[in-house]
Amino acid sequence: MPVPAPNLYPPFNIVRLSHVEYGVRDLAASRAFWVDTLGLQVSYEDDSRIYLRAMEERGHHCVVLAKAETPDVRVLGFKLWDDAALDTAAEWFAARGLPVAWVERPHMGRTLRTADPMGIPLEFYVKMDRLAPIHQQYKLYKGVKPLRIDHFNMFVPDVDAAVAFYGDIGFRVTEYTEDDESGKLWAAWMHRKGGVHDVAFTNGTGPRLHHTAFWVPTPLNIIDLLDLMATTGYVTNIERGPGRHGISNAFFLYVRDPDGHRIEIYCSDYQTVDPDMEPIRWSLTDPQRQTLWGAPAPRSWFEEGSVFAGVAPQEALLKAQPIVAP
Amino acid sequence: MPVPAPNLYPPFNIVRLSHVEYGVRDLAASRAFWVDTLGLQVSYEDDSRIYLRAMEERGHHCVVLAKAETPDVRVLGFKLWDDAALDTAAEWFAARGLPVAWVERPHMGRTLRTADPMGIPLEFYVKMDRLAPIHQQYKLYKGVKPLRIDHFNMFVPDVDAAVAFYGDIGFRVTEYTEDDESGKLWAAWMHRKGGVHDVAFTNGTGPRLHHTAFWVPTPLNIIDLLDLMATTGYVTNIERGPGRHGISNAFFLYVRDPDGHRIEIYCSDYQTVDPDMEPIRWSLTDPQRQTLWGAPAPRSWFEEGSVFAGVAPQEALLKAQPIVAP
Amino acid sequence: MPVPAPNLYPPFNIVRLSHVEYGVRDLAASRAFWVDTLGLQVSYEDDSRIYLRAMEERGHHCVVLAKAETPDVRVLGFKLWDDAALDTAAEWFAARGLPVAWVERPHMGRTLRTADPMGIPLEFYVKMDRLAPIHQQYKLYKGVKPLRIDHFNMFVPDVDAAVAFYGDIGFRVTEYTEDDESGKLWAAWMHRKGGVHDVAFTNGTGPRLHHTAFWVPTPLNIIDLLDLMATTGYVTNIERGPGRHGISNAFFLYVRDPDGHRIEIYCSDYQTVDPDMEPIRWSLTDPQRQTLWGAPAPRSWFEEGSVFAGVAPQEALLKAQPIVAP
Amino acid sequence: MPVPAPNLYPPFNIVRLSHVEYGVRDLAASRAFWVDTLGLQVSYEDDSRIYLRAMEERGHHCVVLAKAETPDVRVLGFKLWDDAALDTAAEWFAARGLPVAWVERPHMGRTLRTADPMGIPLEFYVKMDRLAPIHQQYKLYKGVKPLRIDHFNMFVPDVDAAVAFYGDIGFRVTEYTEDDESGKLWAAWMHRKGGVHDVAFTNGTGPRLHHTAFWVPTPLNIIDLLDLMATTGYVTNIERGPGRHGISNAFFLYVRDPDGHRIEIYCSDYQTVDPDMEPIRWSLTDPQRQTLWGAPAPRSWFEEGSVFAGVAPQEALLKAQPIVAP
Repeated sequence: MPVPAPNLYPPFNIVRLSHVEYGVRDLAASRAFWVDTLGLQVSYEDDSRIYLRAMEERGHHCVVLAKAETPDVRVLGFKLWDDAALDTAAEWFAARGLPVAWVERPHMGRTLRTADPMGIPLEFYVKMDRLAPIHQQYKLYKGVKPLRIDHFNMFVPDVDAAVAFYGDIGFRVTEYTEDDESGKLWAAWMHRKGGVHDVAFTNGTGPRLHHTAFWVPTPLNIIDLLDLMATTGYVTNIERGPGRHGISNAFFLYVRDPDGHRIEIYCSDYQTVDPDMEPIRWSLTDPQRQTLWGAPAPRSWFEEGSVFAGVAPQEALLKAQPIVAP
Repeated sequence: MPVPAPNLYPPFNIVRLSHVEYGVRDLAASRAFWVDTLGLQVSYEDDSRIYLRAMEERGHHCVVLAKAETPDVRVLGFKLWDDAALDTAAEWFAARGLPVAWVERPHMGRTLRTADPMGIPLEFYVKMDRLAPIHQQYKLYKGVKPLRIDHFNMFVPDVDAAVAFYGDIGFRVTEYTEDDESGKLWAAWMHRKGGVHDVAFTNGTGPRLHHTAFWVPTPLNIIDLLDLMATTGYVTNIERGPGRHGISNAFFLYVRDPDGHRIEIYCSDYQTVDPDMEPIRWSLTDPQRQTLWGAPAPRSWFEEGSVFAGVAPQEALLKAQPIVAP
Repeated sequence: MPVPAPNLYPPFNIVRLSHVEYGVRDLAASRAFWVDTLGLQVSYEDDSRIYLRAMEERGHHCVVLAKAETPDVRVLGFKLWDDAALDTAAEWFAARGLPVAWVERPHMGRTLRTADPMGIPLEFYVKMDRLAPIHQQYKLYKGVKPLRIDHFNMFVPDVDAAVAFYGDIGFRVTEYTEDDESGKLWAAWMHRKGGVHDVAFTNGTGPRLHHTAFWVPTPLNIIDLLDLMATTGYVTNIERGPGRHGISNAFFLYVRDPDGHRIEIYCSDYQTVDPDMEPIRWSLTDPQRQTLWGAPAPRSWFEEGSVFAGVAPQEALLKAQPIVAP
Repeated sequence: MPVPAPNLYPPFNIVRLSHVEYGVRDLAASRAFWVDTLGLQVSYEDDSRIYLRAMEERGHHCVVLAKAETPDVRVLGFKLWDDAALDTAAEWFAARGLPVAWVERPHMGRTLRTADPMGIPLEFYVKMDRLAPIHQQYKLYKGVKPLRIDHFNMFVPDVDAAVAFYGDIGFRVTEYTEDDESGKLWAAWMHRKGGVHDVAFTNGTGPRLHHTAFWVPTPLNIIDLLDLMATTGYVTNIERGPGRHGISNAFFLYVRDPDGHRIEIYCSDYQTVDPDMEPIRWSLTDPQRQTLWGAPAPRSWFEEGSVFAGVAPQEALLKAQPIVAP
């Protein structure tokens, strides 16, 4: 099995994925999509940035949309357990020769900026402004009724290397796709917060962000979003789905925002808090791993992604090809 | 507009579509699919035939599966209002030179066998054995929880001709697809019972039966069926969907039985009892008419269908092509 | 059996129930409830009236809210098949000594005003202004996503008499509750349009309107309405439910508007177009007829209703009492 | 605020609640309810015991039904992170004068039996037999489609004391009900696994087990269970619901098994992994804390519970009364 044993005693305690900052070219167009269509709530906005949260979140934001010349991704944020973890994280990354800086971020406390060995920009923090609960203010629910950010999925050129690195800091593999011939990983799903994943890695030119996912109540909310997008000028922003993933067993839909950033709408995976939860293996040749119901994904889904600002993607090491829609 | 005005005073009163008889090669395989997977209830079965009904039906059957050497369709059945209508129907078809015969059918009263001008075998009746209600015996519900037969869809070589004929006997058009260039109908949906259709006609080599549809409670039942079929050896029997049709606004799924007979699982169209309900026009070039969410149908969906026993299909008059999946 | 055989050849063809006019004391408060909370669409409004339609309706209105000193109900409207039916209806009511008048109604063609023998004010018409379809403008859907008006339910002092009268004009009984001791009807459900009912009658001081019902897509929309009402100041307007009726098998919720007019939100009954559909009998002593899951209705539900303007209610003939919540 | 600050550094790491053992008088009757009606899967059974798991669980069992003369509860089980935690737990309980024993349990590794200061019998373990995943064997899903055990709720005579004790071992309060007059806790919800609760405590004669809850996919599965129970002889086993709790925001239903053990069917609470998640306070006088939609719970729900074997319940300290259905 190509998946390393889980590290049950990581050097610092990462609670969960937390937020992403996207560079977008037209804040008004992005707002129409993210707020009016998807239904995220605005926590703060000005001429250069919009901060968004989902309905059950009490942290200030899970998405930052920042005015930019070209679309990109500026950071993936993670919440740590306490300040000790934050200090240990700084030491840990520094000891591995990775960049470490303490940065100022609005609405957030002490923030450590670093990067993984592939260059993905990461920020760790403990405190973010806490907002009053809105999950029972049902008049605010709209669009797909997003409840919380769920995970990041990234193209990386060497999935085995990514899994080894994130495994060292405590992410545990729940499911993975193996290339039968080489025995190498084609993709892997890794979690901290007790669901199928906080982060996933897929073989491809990278690092690039494949998608950010949001959790919604039921498949019917996804159908509602499809109906809404299909009749408000966003029909071509629907990329894949709806369907059920073999991997994760989640009901899914993939849509693209006005800058092409891919968003997964996601519900119904399973609880993974047991430290002895066995990873589930899938073969790269099994089309049901992508979609349990058999339909392959479109080529764009395997090829397109969002670049991280200032990070040049590298070609994938593994040349095996997934099954794509004809 | 190529759609004729509705005939509000038809010569005889057709209540609704009622049943279909399929020739199938392996009764056990068909039973595993129709009963154990789709969830239809067996009203009667012997070595040569299985009679099925859906959960809210009190008539004896909506589907007959008959042991056959090769798959085919033997009849489309319709229920008439009263015996006077049945006699008038016999005269009406005879007066048009169409075949008329009174036949014996198990579980049914007087039955008139005839055919439309395209050769589609039709049977009209008033009385069928009535069974006790089972719609509140919830322990019997399984599979996709089929509630009732909803409609037949047929390939015909000349949709305008089909619409004219069925319009004469009181079917009213609710929606239609027009070929913009020729002004001819590419497809039409026609009803008697107050939904979007009892019968629909699509341009193609015909007559052939494109599909029979069953009404189910909600889109979640369709998702349940997909999950079940995907994990019980029927993944390749899933042909198209799930999705929402632009036409009819229904949430749909198309699956194929072991003989290739196509079944639509269908819910949530709209009420059409008003005699002045205006037909909705769609252009053949609009992909949202097929799937509101934009995904085109696969080629098989446009090309494959079930033959009517003893009826040689004719090539379609209209050569315009629909948009198909790449 | 106390239910008369259906009259399959009524004197004139009633297509379906169509609309209701309510007297309301505060148009702004009513608009906040009917439009902003339930989600009906405004077709027209001025200082004295608001006309509403549901999402799949193309007729101009199914509800009229009229400014009034005291809450009442001014008319129950029904759509007829054609002008011949309208003229016949006028003759038929006149021949029975019932009031007949041709009245002017905005947005409607020729309109016949009459009353049943109990005094319930009825209006029959053939043509109403037709509006463009909005059922696929998903951005307009809100609240409970009402699709169409479904039925009226009335308190009447003599259900047997009401059933006899409405049966004469073609309404067919689908289900009924019988008082086991007297053999008299305690309630009955009667339809024209092919569902469980267009009108229902319940034993009680009357005539009064018990409720008007609206059809919605799925039980989840009813849950959404409950969540919304519970958190926007309408929690005390929730009267009964959610639940499943034994009778009709529908999933239901009862709410009260700001004037106390009762509204049922309703989905998932069954198709009743067969002329030989056998009525289902329930005993007055069976609590599952009210709620399949066993919970009895509150006393208010059995006692409170909306008066018809100018019509003094009479005491019920049948003194049997339903089971009420303790 | 009567809720203590969370202990973010507990003496040993409890992963989650794990299982419960019920004494039941008739194994066949219990099996008909738990397996055939609720839909739990049998992992093992013999003449004296039935072991059950839910659909997404890979541990051997979450419920044990044991043949007994009188109904009772024998143990609440919790999974620990590792063997070091298990040893520390033994020391920790022993140091407080609580009973400590290492017991043999079929299908489980080292098992520590102890009790909390109120006498609730607890067992801690690290390893339980692991079974192959069945969450994608959709043909096995039935009843309410239970996915996993979610929480235990207990009557205790002193909620403040219970919260203090469980807080010491790392359970964190997410929501609580306060008696406004005394400032004492009336109820509290505490979690380890990242949802609203693993354990909850309610003021009442105790300790007694109020209920065990199971997580299901959507509210529609709860409606399916209601329909099934209502038509298979279990209508009087339906105690409360369906509804939405103000507290937890979960959609719920309470049913009783043949021995009166109460089971909650539960879905849609929220993620609580943040260590700084602020507890939500509810007043005992707010009926929406019980049911967001306003309906109070029946008296039985506040008074009846299952005794722990050999543990005599004590009267509640706090005499404040909840609002009950009239």
